[in-house]
Amino acid sequence: MQRASPVTVADPARLVLRLADGRMDGATGRYEKRLSELDGLYLDGTAHAAAVKQQGDPVVYMVEDFRPSAQPGDMIFGVTRMLPGRIGDEFYLTRGHIHAKADRPEIYHGQAGRGLMLLESPDGETRVIEIGPNAVCYVPPYWIHRSINVGAEDLVMAFSYPADAGQDYGIISRSNGMRKRVLEDGKGGWRLADNADYRPRSAAEVTGLLAAGART
Amino acid sequence: MQRASPVTVADPARLVLRLADGRMDGATGRYEKRLSELDGLYLDGTAHAAAVKQQGDPVVYMVEDFRPSAQPGDMIFGVTRMLPGRIGDEFYLTRGHIHAKADRPEIYHGQAGRGLMLLESPDGETRVIEIGPNAVCYVPPYWIHRSINVGAEDLVMAFSYPADAGQDYGIISRSNGMRKRVLEDGKGGWRLADNADYRPRSAAEVTGLLAAGART
Repeated sequence: MQRASPVTVADPARLVLRLADGRMDGATGRYEKRLSELDGLYLDGTAHAAAVKQQGDPVVYMVEDFRPSAQPGDMIFGVTRMLPGRIGDEFYLTRGHIHAKADRPEIYHGQAGRGLMLLESPDGETRVIEIGPNAVCYVPPYWIHRSINVGAEDLVMAFSYPADAGQDYGIISRSNGMRKRVLEDGKGGWRLADNADYRPRSAAEVTGLLAAGART
Repeated sequence: MQRASPVTVADPARLVLRLADGRMDGATGRYEKRLSELDGLYLDGTAHAAAVKQQGDPVVYMVEDFRPSAQPGDMIFGVTRMLPGRIGDEFYLTRGHIHAKADRPEIYHGQAGRGLMLLESPDGETRVIEIGPNAVCYVPPYWIHRSINVGAEDLVMAFSYPADAGQDYGIISRSNGMRKRVLEDGKGGWRLADNADYRPRSAAEVTGLLAAGART
């Protein structure tokens, strides 16, 4: 719907989450990640390569979203589904990101399964938020975040975030990963372990991230 | 957490929706509406006054939300619970609003019960989006919106919207209500009916709303 006015007024939309397959009726976009695309993220590279080969490079997570616009002030809503699994002792994870506009938040709302949000601040603090049905994680501005499936079933989450946020996926690789890894604890649960390759951001990098956000 | 940096980095938060009573662990705010506060909104004022008296002015809807900040770019998340009922033939409704920054959207995500979002554009178009478990309504910028419980049980919805959006509740009263009312259809469902008192916004008012949004 367009009108002879200074702005376009968009149409209301109805979306329907399909928890069984992690899809969303009414979505405007979709992407998938295969296990091979997560090369370099896991502690055990040999186990990763073997899993890719043995399993035929499966899709390990997928996202469907509704993006009405990229206007500042607008919002994106979607659903993500992560398969369960481990590479060695390390639970399946997403690539993770900080927002390109670093001062933008994100809200994840658990729908099915059992997962974690692993969060890292610019200066390297770690937080973990447990997610499951009815549990919600508020990711504040400036926090790097990655989803982890620590359950035996698909992890399905709804999410919403500002339409102009964007994603910077490079921030994690520039530090050789996040400071912490999430490993199985041998008792059916999870534990955090240090990532020995982690390279903290410099004071100048931290200041730059916070200043970049503050400018927008 | 505060740092010697240009901005404050907030803490991640975990929220838990309690669908049975419409509350949310981790909420920072709460408000309730009693039936008497909806005086003037229903077609049958006599039936409304009688219901207030007979029922002891019950709470008819409540909201709990998490407001990390009011910074542009940040987001608010919450849950609303509406009781079922009717005033005469008219289903229970919320006061309704447009955002004070009219170019801000809102997303409602059904959790329990059966409801509608009644939407009206500045120049008076009406849309209805049905909401229930797993159904989501995207309210675009510039749309007035009001929730209606058309079921026999509590209607529970999660919502998220930009932290700087604000609410203008007066826009509906200035037009003597929304253009349409939602009435029971005598067959267990609902139907739209014209609001005879409705006063359309002038072209200048419409232009002003759209321009106000475009300035932000």
